[in-house]
Amino acid sequence: MIAEVLSIGDELLIGQTINTNASWIGQELSKIGARVIRVSTISDDKNEIFRALLNLHSDTNCLIITGGLGPTKDDITKHTLCEFFETELEIHQPTLEKIQAYFAARNRPMLESNNLQAALPKDCTILVNNYGTASGMWFDKNGKIIISLPGVPYEMKGIMTEEVFPRLKAKFNLKAIFHKTAHTQGIGESFLAEKIKDWEDNVRNEGFGLAYLPSPGLVKLRITSYNGQSDEFKIDAFFKGLKELIPENLWGYENETLPEVVGKLLTKKCFTIGTVESCTGGLLANTIVSNAGASHYFTGSLVTYSNDQKHRLANVSIDSILNYGAVSEEVAIEMANGAKEKLGVDVCISTTGIAGPNGGTEEKPVGLVWIALAFKNKTIARKFQFGDNRERNMQMTTLSALNWLRFELEII
Amino acid sequence: MIAEVLSIGDELLIGQTINTNASWIGQELSKIGARVIRVSTISDDKNEIFRALLNLHSDTNCLIITGGLGPTKDDITKHTLCEFFETELEIHQPTLEKIQAYFAARNRPMLESNNLQAALPKDCTILVNNYGTASGMWFDKNGKIIISLPGVPYEMKGIMTEEVFPRLKAKFNLKAIFHKTAHTQGIGESFLAEKIKDWEDNVRNEGFGLAYLPSPGLVKLRITSYNGQSDEFKIDAFFKGLKELIPENLWGYENETLPEVVGKLLTKKCFTIGTVESCTGGLLANTIVSNAGASHYFTGSLVTYSNDQKHRLANVSIDSILNYGAVSEEVAIEMANGAKEKLGVDVCISTTGIAGPNGGTEEKPVGLVWIALAFKNKTIARKFQFGDNRERNMQMTTLSALNWLRFELEII
Repeated sequence: MIAEVLSIGDELLIGQTINTNASWIGQELSKIGARVIRVSTISDDKNEIFRALLNLHSDTNCLIITGGLGPTKDDITKHTLCEFFETELEIHQPTLEKIQAYFAARNRPMLESNNLQAALPKDCTILVNNYGTASGMWFDKNGKIIISLPGVPYEMKGIMTEEVFPRLKAKFNLKAIFHKTAHTQGIGESFLAEKIKDWEDNVRNEGFGLAYLPSPGLVKLRITSYNGQSDEFKIDAFFKGLKELIPENLWGYENETLPEVVGKLLTKKCFTIGTVESCTGGLLANTIVSNAGASHYFTGSLVTYSNDQKHRLANVSIDSILNYGAVSEEVAIEMANGAKEKLGVDVCISTTGIAGPNGGTEEKPVGLVWIALAFKNKTIARKFQFGDNRERNMQMTTLSALNWLRFELEII
Repeated sequence: MIAEVLSIGDELLIGQTINTNASWIGQELSKIGARVIRVSTISDDKNEIFRALLNLHSDTNCLIITGGLGPTKDDITKHTLCEFFETELEIHQPTLEKIQAYFAARNRPMLESNNLQAALPKDCTILVNNYGTASGMWFDKNGKIIISLPGVPYEMKGIMTEEVFPRLKAKFNLKAIFHKTAHTQGIGESFLAEKIKDWEDNVRNEGFGLAYLPSPGLVKLRITSYNGQSDEFKIDAFFKGLKELIPENLWGYENETLPEVVGKLLTKKCFTIGTVESCTGGLLANTIVSNAGASHYFTGSLVTYSNDQKHRLANVSIDSILNYGAVSEEVAIEMANGAKEKLGVDVCISTTGIAGPNGGTEEKPVGLVWIALAFKNKTIARKFQFGDNRERNMQMTTLSALNWLRFELEII
């Protein structure tokens, strides 16, 4: 199956909205073994849509259209499709009832324009929208599937997941592709590739696909099986081997997040946690509480941005600050120990560094960060050197601290 | 000037990268009075690129191509353009010297593929890239401008700003359009439109354009003059009138950020600030320090996520927590007063609320938040009701707290 995506919307052309729909469709289709080879964005204009439909190339067998189905502009895509396929609109009774129920449930008055959303082309399969009032449409004409969906992302995603993917799999007899993803932190894509070269060769030689998916500070590794879920056991064995190769980097799988993984480990060990933050200024605490169950192990934090607060709140000695500087191994350790006691927690993470853009020296350049972890019986510190972007340095510090803690909790 | 954008890259089609380049180009061109009417994304494939060039419609007079110029794939876009325009590559001496200097400055060895980046089509204007090694190209053929740029966003943006926009303005004799933007918080787009209806009519009647640019929690208002910067004085007068209409909402102009505006006010009044956070879990402190100069007024914060820490760190009375609950006016006020003293600051913001997704009751639903501001001589509290998304609730609380503080600092 080779697909083309047509996104309709002036807001996309003037850059007011970023076309995340097309990315999502590309990503999801690649997961089921289909391929998007072209994405076009045009304005909410009948002539433009008609021309796009006329100019479809013969190298694709599926067109997915998003946008132009709202109640205020429903005349555009729908009417153009009717004209193109030489059919006409008629009220689709199940859709009308669904729309009426939708408004009744929300106690909102129904406008004539909402009723008209139930007027749909005679000559197509209606795709049920459980998230809004604009139905999707599926045309099967001259060996080509043409699908029209609303542009609101969660409505589009809902209809794609519930109505479109199952039909496409059946129609194009798509092979059962199965993916599983592992998450790594603290190692760049090329270093990672170098380090796991033999493992990668082995995965590929056994007939699996491997993709590196990098994002700032993280690299995901996705293994693809072309035999479906029956290979899950084999993939898990590959990842087990990978975990032995890079235990400091591999922190989780699939939809897991790093704060969630750390949270599970803390819960398992019945540890409470706190943080004491200088250069991250609260980002580490906020990342920990981004996990909804955090109140089971997180009680509180200290943000000690100034030297005075390091002393006042976390009992860091003034001598250490004067002798070693606020960004030093000694101060990181005293911060973690002092705050662990002050907060009354089992584990405490400290961060102190030069986030930038100013404040660096030759000896202590922008991007230098010390992180310390205080446990019941030991406190350890590590030095990191990040780049010159303030926001990125805070994020890298936060990810590095959480992943390092994850590793230590696994081996304790 | 009517433009078309052609984005080249497999990573865009499989959804690994979102096409933010096309959005940015659309946005920036609309600012200089040009219009993008079509965006197409295709793969790194010579035939695809050639076909896209052959199929250009006559309704545009400018094509902007991004992507496919890196050292590993430089044969694709560049060679295709040469073939299409029936010209050939030759070493462009100034570019070669620039690339050599680039590598020398970074102490990195130069590969043959890097040298080849200086091989550029004979028959075009070279657009200097001050941010990387792939030059841009400008072809002026048969009444159409065809521009080819690297896909790396900051290189593309750099060349567009320094080389392309000035040339496009001259070539298409674009009218001098001038914009100025005001930022608002705490009022939805439709309520805002209702409230400033007469003001808006007046702006439009005087021949100016007005655009509402909404993003989560914020709405920007952009006034456009079609007579260039000479209207700046008039626009400032409009915004002055707007500020009188919505002093609680309008917090800044142009590239200002809310933490920056709050920082300027604190600096002007010589106030230090701290926070004590429950539901925001450090996000408010982190947002304050996102402004690089924050150390002048921000010293530290307390994250008091558990009831125990509210008492332990911020001296909130256990009675108040038991009688009114942690999410209450009384506790918000005690948190702000207690932390102001503990941190030794002039101003302190407290947040306590139910971020969700769980923990809500009928009386105190998810999204309920109390914010208090403690000043030298008064402490005030306000109740907010946000939605059911945890992350969004934390962001809305942070924006609301900072904007409310901004308003209070302005009228003190």
